[in-house]
Amino acid sequence: MSFEEITPSEFFYRNRDLAGFTNPTRSLYFTVRELVENSLDSCESKGIKPELFVSIAIDGSEQQEEPRFYDVMVQDNGGGIPRRHLADAFGRVFYGSKFKLKQSRGMFGLGVTMAVLYGQATTNRPAFVASSVSGQRYYGYQLKIDVEKNRPVILRKFEGRAVGWRGTLVAVTVLGDYQRAESKIISYLEQTAMAAPYVTMIFRGPRGEDLRFHRVTDFMPKPPHEILPHPLGVDIEMLKKMIRAWKDRGDLAHFLTRSFQRVGGKTVQKLLERIDIPGSMEPGKLSEDQLQGLMSAIKSYEYFLPPDPSGLSPLGADLLEAGVRRMLNPEFLTISVRKPSAYGGHPFTVEVAVAYGGPRLKPGITVFRLANRIPLLYDESSDVTWKVLNNMDLSGYRIRSEHPIGVIVHICSTRVPYKTVGKEYIADRPEIEREIRLALRDAFRRLRVYLSRKETMAYRKKRASTYSKYLPLIAKFAAGLVGAKKPPPYEDLIPTLEREVLLVEEAA
Amino acid sequence: MSFEEITPSEFFYRNRDLAGFTNPTRSLYFTVRELVENSLDSCESKGIKPELFVSIAIDGSEQQEEPRFYDVMVQDNGGGIPRRHLADAFGRVFYGSKFKLKQSRGMFGLGVTMAVLYGQATTNRPAFVASSVSGQRYYGYQLKIDVEKNRPVILRKFEGRAVGWRGTLVAVTVLGDYQRAESKIISYLEQTAMAAPYVTMIFRGPRGEDLRFHRVTDFMPKPPHEILPHPLGVDIEMLKKMIRAWKDRGDLAHFLTRSFQRVGGKTVQKLLERIDIPGSMEPGKLSEDQLQGLMSAIKSYEYFLPPDPSGLSPLGADLLEAGVRRMLNPEFLTISVRKPSAYGGHPFTVEVAVAYGGPRLKPGITVFRLANRIPLLYDESSDVTWKVLNNMDLSGYRIRSEHPIGVIVHICSTRVPYKTVGKEYIADRPEIEREIRLALRDAFRRLRVYLSRKETMAYRKKRASTYSKYLPLIAKFAAGLVGAKKPPPYEDLIPTLEREVLLVEEAA
Repeated sequence: MSFEEITPSEFFYRNRDLAGFTNPTRSLYFTVRELVENSLDSCESKGIKPELFVSIAIDGSEQQEEPRFYDVMVQDNGGGIPRRHLADAFGRVFYGSKFKLKQSRGMFGLGVTMAVLYGQATTNRPAFVASSVSGQRYYGYQLKIDVEKNRPVILRKFEGRAVGWRGTLVAVTVLGDYQRAESKIISYLEQTAMAAPYVTMIFRGPRGEDLRFHRVTDFMPKPPHEILPHPLGVDIEMLKKMIRAWKDRGDLAHFLTRSFQRVGGKTVQKLLERIDIPGSMEPGKLSEDQLQGLMSAIKSYEYFLPPDPSGLSPLGADLLEAGVRRMLNPEFLTISVRKPSAYGGHPFTVEVAVAYGGPRLKPGITVFRLANRIPLLYDESSDVTWKVLNNMDLSGYRIRSEHPIGVIVHICSTRVPYKTVGKEYIADRPEIEREIRLALRDAFRRLRVYLSRKETMAYRKKRASTYSKYLPLIAKFAAGLVGAKKPPPYEDLIPTLEREVLLVEEAA
Repeated sequence: MSFEEITPSEFFYRNRDLAGFTNPTRSLYFTVRELVENSLDSCESKGIKPELFVSIAIDGSEQQEEPRFYDVMVQDNGGGIPRRHLADAFGRVFYGSKFKLKQSRGMFGLGVTMAVLYGQATTNRPAFVASSVSGQRYYGYQLKIDVEKNRPVILRKFEGRAVGWRGTLVAVTVLGDYQRAESKIISYLEQTAMAAPYVTMIFRGPRGEDLRFHRVTDFMPKPPHEILPHPLGVDIEMLKKMIRAWKDRGDLAHFLTRSFQRVGGKTVQKLLERIDIPGSMEPGKLSEDQLQGLMSAIKSYEYFLPPDPSGLSPLGADLLEAGVRRMLNPEFLTISVRKPSAYGGHPFTVEVAVAYGGPRLKPGITVFRLANRIPLLYDESSDVTWKVLNNMDLSGYRIRSEHPIGVIVHICSTRVPYKTVGKEYIADRPEIEREIRLALRDAFRRLRVYLSRKETMAYRKKRASTYSKYLPLIAKFAAGLVGAKKPPPYEDLIPTLEREVLLVEEAA
């Protein structure tokens, strides 16, 4: 038996399926997605309204058929990456700025580096990255990743005047199958624009396609910010790490109130009384047993306030509505936004939109899943949203299979519980399930009102037209019965009935 | 924006959901599973018939309710781990012996280390590992993992006389929920015994349960061995790595024939002619362009023999039958074993058993999924096997919803395309789908024969009993018709009909 150690680069290089890079179709999709999400995070974290240029071009190489080489490039107007971090940010696995308690699209700090690794493995081409923080000068690298050492190898350096451009540009050459990936990529961009209607994206495809998503609002939700951990979201290892980082800035009582959210002086007092440790102790001097006791006391403490949702940045009803209207232009739309909730010490919030009709929706229920403003397009049947939908009695809401209904579910969290590194779908935590269910119920109730009005209206319309048709005959017949020569003046009755229908239509 | 680098320990520590450690129930199950699989691999790779002792005990700590602390221990009689690797093998992420082209249960070199990490995070207890390679002396460590450095921290060392014991023992304390995990753990052990009927496992549960799976056969499939990569399973990075490892043991032609399977002198000649590189060149001197050219030539070469399946170690029809009989004791059982096939340069083979009736199967289809002899118990609906089943017309095989049917699918490969690090389910590669479909069709055809016989038999039985009932009356009536006083001797006819039914039953 021979043992060896491999680097994280090598691990993900060998097992790129784990990060979603399973075949040329999916890998081309994931490349676009990772680059776009990285750019959007970079803009939003600085409060900049994103303007992205996304391009996919056939690489001028030999292959005539799919799969073939594609140059994928994304340029943003974000905050840029400082020169000293630029090469590592794209050329080193587990190096990044995403290892924080903060709502962001990226979560694992892996995405773009995976795209660089995948490109390198399939095409042997280097990646090109360039950035400007100042807007004065840009700097860039042509680089590859040394997978055995997990570090970037810089092949060429570039530098020049940025002429006002601030942001980051990433270009990779990958083996892809655009023909098969096209519809997913377009859906991804469309739904990204739906989830972030303040974004402008210009997409240039390999056949010269030109798709433009212009922002429909100038309003941006406040940027998410980093938060202190909630005591219930922390385990013993994290506690130790926090104590090490605290060094000797104060005693235990101080440490606890300053390092955690929702922990005040009284809470600390009650906590420490239970385990009989003085608050004046130095946190670094706690024994293993005392640490363990503190952790147990935290886990069994009943009175913590729920996790602070201020680090969350949900879209809000108006932005969600603007986004959905642009994409689906539905006949009816209702939004349901839940208050923040929490699972295992992590705050989250659920926003739901339910749409009916319009030019895009087909009969049946179409689900659009979003998490921290990312559209999730693969492995839909495994997702928590379908689990909730499958357990609801939809006929109770007058929903029938021929109805064209769109269900948009957006989950925001400082920690979305994805089940895969590729962020394809969300685990079925009971707390999240519950919030989705409540939001859907609320929205479906309003949909039911709309659907019953629609039914009533259709019925009245039918009745009205029946009346209009038979009224002259009835009038004539009635006149005949009483022996009158002329029927009574019935004409006024018809407009009344039709007016009724019109009124009902307006009300809906 | 602040950047930082994290170690693989820290990554998987933070994102343990990715490796299946999502909650106390599932984590207890995964802990058992990872320890058992590690032990089985360790025995089988040495050709030793595994004898495992698996124990789960309530840790004598404060919690009275689930979830609480459990001590999980697995001891095997495998080859043992040399002293110099023991601490790293359990205390360092990405350190192991599984990074090879070889069929084994473990694939990512992560499992046991994840269990140690999870235990440490939830209970703050060290792990205990001990091993003996010689059978003379054992050595052991109490250790924790320094997640920020990704290395083991040894707290205590042990050493002593092994008294004939050779193998490895691992014990970890984890936060678990046995009440909820119990059925999964038992199913896991049962199905593991089904997939490896040459294994003996003794399980001691926390309430004193004592489950014994004794081997039902002494025959073990030949141990899987490491194979050279197939050219189609290699990409440019791997090619470079192989060239580096080759150093200067010979020219390019030599390198190609010695480093790959299925590549002989003629193939090399044809390959190199296409790209105009002399076989006498030193592989280390190839330029980037030449490497790229070589890779392209390999990818477009049409005449490679399919990947060598000799590294695979399928169960074979007999072992699979023995395993399924022990577990399900079905009324009818048929096996279908496919010839080896390949996807993307990796050999694989599919073995299928279809069972009907018996004491364990319930009405409907129950699927048992196995991959490299591992039972897969979670996320069944996402698996390729259900995808295939859902696309088959089962009524064509006379399968009805009330039939109690078991479908056992075993996939062996040097590289099982799992979609998650937790190895929950298998991606739907078209080549694998096809083999499963063909194996199922074959088995279902024989099931159909059995089911129709069964139907015919039931029909005859019914007919026979109808005859038996009416025969005396018919005889009497017939006698009356011809004016006879006594009916003809009809009694002999009844046994004949009943015998016919019995014969049919035997034939089935």
